[in-house]
Amino acid sequence: METSTVAANSRTSTQVITSEQLLKHWQGHRNLTRRVIEAFPEDEFFKFSIGGMRTFADLAMEMVRMAVPGIRGVVTGKWETAEGADIFNGVAMPATRKEVLQLWDNVTKEIDTFWPQIPAQHFQDVEVAFGQWENPIYSTIFYFIDNEIHHRGQGYVYLRALGIEPPHFYER
Amino acid sequence: METSTVAANSRTSTQVITSEQLLKHWQGHRNLTRRVIEAFPEDEFFKFSIGGMRTFADLAMEMVRMAVPGIRGVVTGKWETAEGADIFNGVAMPATRKEVLQLWDNVTKEIDTFWPQIPAQHFQDVEVAFGQWENPIYSTIFYFIDNEIHHRGQGYVYLRALGIEPPHFYER
Repeated sequence: METSTVAANSRTSTQVITSEQLLKHWQGHRNLTRRVIEAFPEDEFFKFSIGGMRTFADLAMEMVRMAVPGIRGVVTGKWETAEGADIFNGVAMPATRKEVLQLWDNVTKEIDTFWPQIPAQHFQDVEVAFGQWENPIYSTIFYFIDNEIHHRGQGYVYLRALGIEPPHFYER
Repeated sequence: METSTVAANSRTSTQVITSEQLLKHWQGHRNLTRRVIEAFPEDEFFKFSIGGMRTFADLAMEMVRMAVPGIRGVVTGKWETAEGADIFNGVAMPATRKEVLQLWDNVTKEIDTFWPQIPAQHFQDVEVAFGQWENPIYSTIFYFIDNEIHHRGQGYVYLRALGIEPPHFYER
């Protein structure tokens, strides 16, 4: 018993980042992105863009469409593509920002529900995500997070171009 | 001996992300940012901006100025501020993009040199980075990376506004 306790403690203390910390990190970023969505005027959220890029509504919906089948794929090994039967896959663009925020909050709950089901050793397993991208699970999860930071940074430029001050980047 | 080997293997297999993997993750992002710097025309790199934001030269130099005292602080516990004596701190904006790229490559080597000196258990230590931000070391390192992704995403909008196709986000 004593040896196994020591080993368990040792494991915890030498984690670069624990599973729980990574969940909190992701949800912290998602909380900031939610406030960026709220910072847009209703019409500009759906229509404003620069240089032929997608609107922030399109970018936010990409995050929604990636996150739920993503976390389900991580947990179940079933990577449903956009053509799949999942309620979030292929979900149509809502007509209002309020509905996008409701979807956002549903995703927050889905992630919180699925995340604790990731077995500790699974982060290092290599899997083909969405039938296309072969990477360790940790790397696939970082892709979800990094992709969100990347597109949210673009949303900051849209807001500045509209004369709106975005939320502070360091507040999560 | 056998018990300690089992414990060590167990530690490795249950890491969410190892120290070496996190280094590779950061340097992969830095490699992409380097290509974004290269994608800018020389003059626009130093002068183009949208909505009163900083130029991409300013953003790239923020990354340079944060990374080296950052990784040194992580390793040594000495967090030199921009007023410090470090050669990278307070370093003036170079006159050419080529010189920025040379600084960038110096930073790459500094990170590679310092990183392996981070003790395994140190990622979970809480420290006040740069005399201001009290966080676990892993969180401080993620701030360096996330801040770079955030500002690089803004550089993508600048490039698109200039009619230039940025490098693929998923290529590191």
